[in-house]
Amino acid sequence: MSRDLIAKPLTAEAFAPFGDVLEVAESTPDKIINQGMCGRHHDRATLDFSDGQAGLSLFDSKPRDLPYAVELVERHPEGSQAFVPLNGVPMLVIVANDLGDRPGQVHAFLSQPGQAINLHRGTWHGVLAPYQAQGQYIVIDRIGAGANLEEHWFDTPWVVTEIATDTSPAEG
Amino acid sequence: MSRDLIAKPLTAEAFAPFGDVLEVAESTPDKIINQGMCGRHHDRATLDFSDGQAGLSLFDSKPRDLPYAVELVERHPEGSQAFVPLNGVPMLVIVANDLGDRPGQVHAFLSQPGQAINLHRGTWHGVLAPYQAQGQYIVIDRIGAGANLEEHWFDTPWVVTEIATDTSPAEG
Repeated sequence: MSRDLIAKPLTAEAFAPFGDVLEVAESTPDKIINQGMCGRHHDRATLDFSDGQAGLSLFDSKPRDLPYAVELVERHPEGSQAFVPLNGVPMLVIVANDLGDRPGQVHAFLSQPGQAINLHRGTWHGVLAPYQAQGQYIVIDRIGAGANLEEHWFDTPWVVTEIATDTSPAEG
Repeated sequence: MSRDLIAKPLTAEAFAPFGDVLEVAESTPDKIINQGMCGRHHDRATLDFSDGQAGLSLFDSKPRDLPYAVELVERHPEGSQAFVPLNGVPMLVIVANDLGDRPGQVHAFLSQPGQAINLHRGTWHGVLAPYQAQGQYIVIDRIGAGANLEEHWFDTPWVVTEIATDTSPAEG
């Protein structure tokens, strides 16, 4: 079995097992506010901070490029984690199915400008990976007691070797 | 007394009475994560959702330009409200001092790309106003029961007539 991955375009449908994609393109406003000037797409992410609270942090990360080796995934058992691009830099989004005590199949997506994501509580994911440029992101995650972190290091890294240009189903 | 306003550059210091400004430029990371690749500026906003919960929504708003008439401010007595620009469009940020049952002096700021804001619970503010371009913003505010909205219409509108180019103290 190959450990190579092709990064697929990030769509709400493909990402649904792992989290939410927030974007205007795939959404109809729930309410028109501000005297007709603004559409509100209301409450579009499943936030869950267990016994903690929501906090806003800012992540400033160095860029990644292909081939991108994924040696590690992690998860936050006590909370969801959302990433909103602040300077328009797309993310290489790495997630994995859950086998209970460890990750299973790994999936790679490339986000587009205008897309924000929310990883559901407990979802295995790679670290923040801005694609080809230094990236800043507002992060909405759990502020609270406890480590809230599990890591899994792969014996053989997965490697994102290619960016797909269509939305055909992921391999594996 | 003139009702004209000059929009000042948005800085954390000038905005402190009304809310938080999140940006890399004015901040030192609290923690370096992801094997040295990422700075985490941790928990940089005062979120408060009273008896409700945090939610992520997407606002898609038409542009505003100068002169910009402010006929209305509003406040959310039960929660803070954060705006993270998703497509890089600066905001004309209107806020006002509180006289208890009504707004006092009104202030105008122009945000820069790379800045997100969080309005503190109960702060009088203008509606979302993307400057000169259609703007999308991820909004972090309270999901919960009740109206959570007070509006104040001005007899004489305030008008933003000019964008300042320095950070000298606001008028009024």
